[in-house]
Amino acid sequence: MTNPVLLLVGDSETNQNLYYKTSFLAGDPFVYVENGDRRLMVITPFEQGRARQESSTSEVRTFDDYGHTELVRELGDRSKAWSTMVRRIVKEFGDSATVEGSFPVHLADSLRSQGVALEVDPQLLMLERRRKSDEQVAAIAEAQQATERAMTQAISILAASEVHLGVLHYNGIPLTSERLRSEVELSLTRDGMDPGTPVIAAGPGAADPHWKGAGPIQPGDSVVLDIFPRSKTTRYFADCTRTVVRGEPRPELAAMYDAVLHAQEAALREIRAGTNGKNVHEAVLAVFREAGYEREEGPKFIHSTGHGVGLNIHEGPGLGISDVELLEGDVVTVEPGLYDSQVGAIRIEDLVVVTKDGYRNLTQLAKEFEV
Amino acid sequence: MTNPVLLLVGDSETNQNLYYKTSFLAGDPFVYVENGDRRLMVITPFEQGRARQESSTSEVRTFDDYGHTELVRELGDRSKAWSTMVRRIVKEFGDSATVEGSFPVHLADSLRSQGVALEVDPQLLMLERRRKSDEQVAAIAEAQQATERAMTQAISILAASEVHLGVLHYNGIPLTSERLRSEVELSLTRDGMDPGTPVIAAGPGAADPHWKGAGPIQPGDSVVLDIFPRSKTTRYFADCTRTVVRGEPRPELAAMYDAVLHAQEAALREIRAGTNGKNVHEAVLAVFREAGYEREEGPKFIHSTGHGVGLNIHEGPGLGISDVELLEGDVVTVEPGLYDSQVGAIRIEDLVVVTKDGYRNLTQLAKEFEV
Repeated sequence: MTNPVLLLVGDSETNQNLYYKTSFLAGDPFVYVENGDRRLMVITPFEQGRARQESSTSEVRTFDDYGHTELVRELGDRSKAWSTMVRRIVKEFGDSATVEGSFPVHLADSLRSQGVALEVDPQLLMLERRRKSDEQVAAIAEAQQATERAMTQAISILAASEVHLGVLHYNGIPLTSERLRSEVELSLTRDGMDPGTPVIAAGPGAADPHWKGAGPIQPGDSVVLDIFPRSKTTRYFADCTRTVVRGEPRPELAAMYDAVLHAQEAALREIRAGTNGKNVHEAVLAVFREAGYEREEGPKFIHSTGHGVGLNIHEGPGLGISDVELLEGDVVTVEPGLYDSQVGAIRIEDLVVVTKDGYRNLTQLAKEFEV
Repeated sequence: MTNPVLLLVGDSETNQNLYYKTSFLAGDPFVYVENGDRRLMVITPFEQGRARQESSTSEVRTFDDYGHTELVRELGDRSKAWSTMVRRIVKEFGDSATVEGSFPVHLADSLRSQGVALEVDPQLLMLERRRKSDEQVAAIAEAQQATERAMTQAISILAASEVHLGVLHYNGIPLTSERLRSEVELSLTRDGMDPGTPVIAAGPGAADPHWKGAGPIQPGDSVVLDIFPRSKTTRYFADCTRTVVRGEPRPELAAMYDAVLHAQEAALREIRAGTNGKNVHEAVLAVFREAGYEREEGPKFIHSTGHGVGLNIHEGPGLGISDVELLEGDVVTVEPGLYDSQVGAIRIEDLVVVTKDGYRNLTQLAKEFEV
């Protein structure tokens, strides 16, 4: 970012940079401009009081301080009134600003046509957001604990289920992915989390890692439980996957589980500040190759090893085929897996914070396949 | 929209136009291009199978059909590879396209620099999305029913609470906004809804309509319950507000409640296709004026009368000070309220679908102040 004026526009529920910069959660759009020590937020008069109390910005003004209501009346067009107001705000800071890659083209065109030069930075704040503070790590760790409580709940239901007519039953009723998912969601909701839609995927269908899972769970099938909720309080995400089986596992699954566990251990050994993220991924590939899983046929590893987690569930750094230097304070998942559309899937995922000498695992939960 | 080629880029969890056009829910970005009968979706190879099954588009291709993997390798920059790929896709359709106002500036700049002319339409698909089909209305009505079950649950807890040492208690424990909110969220989660953060705001603090509410609930205080969840299945929102009091209401509250109820009835009488939305708002203002609520001091109406509801919780048409013709199939809230920072707040909100001759109320729930 060479231009010192930073301009963010949007709502802080969907724009994480805006939330990161203001610590103020609002579903309706507002404007944030920063230049050195001046950190100005311009918001609807409605939200003024809450913004002064809750936001971390040094200055809060309202749309009407920039004539918004009159502009709507004069121009008869909310969209034009909005861009004129944003231009007035920016002009206080100068004739140019740095914006995100996702900055809305409509507003960009309008600002440019009025002589505001925009520098578009697709990586804006990404590096800054990667280096988590102690407080941010604590928020993620807390979310991870809620995730583990939900996971423990789901696994204990699976462990207490019984086979009846070839299908798992719990409390006398067939145990489905939907029922387990509901239990996970309720546990997370009780803990103040937004549960999203957890993956509870059993059997061969789980070989598609985007499948959320549905239907009765069969004994001997692997069940992938991937839970990635967001704290409603801190807005930080957590992410954890365990794979378990109830009953005698299908042939091949136990060997796949061991390979994935070893791959994860190998990956974790590579993690420390200064390392190339690619090396972490390659450590996983080496274990799978060694174990004979990189052939045309049979179980395969079909995604990257991990990703950053923060105010977005997926953020930098990626642990995959690209070069990226790990930084102290990066919070990343380490989640190797093996997928076979004939057999099923195994994935094990921990969430760790990168330190100078290695990592601290934010995940406490045990790893046991047969429950 | 004068340019016949429509281009949407983003993820369909946050981009509602994209979900509207594809019926395909994905958290990772993809590309949609439409020209007459050709409706093409280009997505990661990962999601190909699911996209073919679930999406409503006529054609599904993958990023690699446009050389994405090689582009990442050649250019060494994911952002450049992405924009080059999008340009290749668009070029199949011609040299120009219509995009949303929120289209990312980074991608817009790249396309334009390669000779693609973009027509930016801030109102893209807004009119089309306002006219809800029977199926869409049914989805909203279903979400509204889940909302009413959660509301009934909260109200029944309030009704069963007892005063102890001046504070409401339920099951022997002080009844707080947080506890009631949790019950509402659990009910919605059980019903497959994403609960968001419901407003459970009691006492004078509720005079700020953006306050979510916190702390013990006092007998005699009005409690505003505003619940607006989203169906995880259909992605449509619902929206409902009731205000209740447990115990003898504070002076002024009962009169405010009556005025709000009458204002809502007056507003509903105005609703039919062809009417100006402004008239609906003015009907509310007239009732409040008549009841003496438009003075400097005392309770005031401080927001618009309603808004459209669909794949966004706030969409067109607004029922406020602007001119807007109501259309058959519009689904709108009707939610007058009165706010007084000394006394508290009253708001009553129904959700209705606009018909040729009037409206159909999607809300079944009774309106009773004292419980």
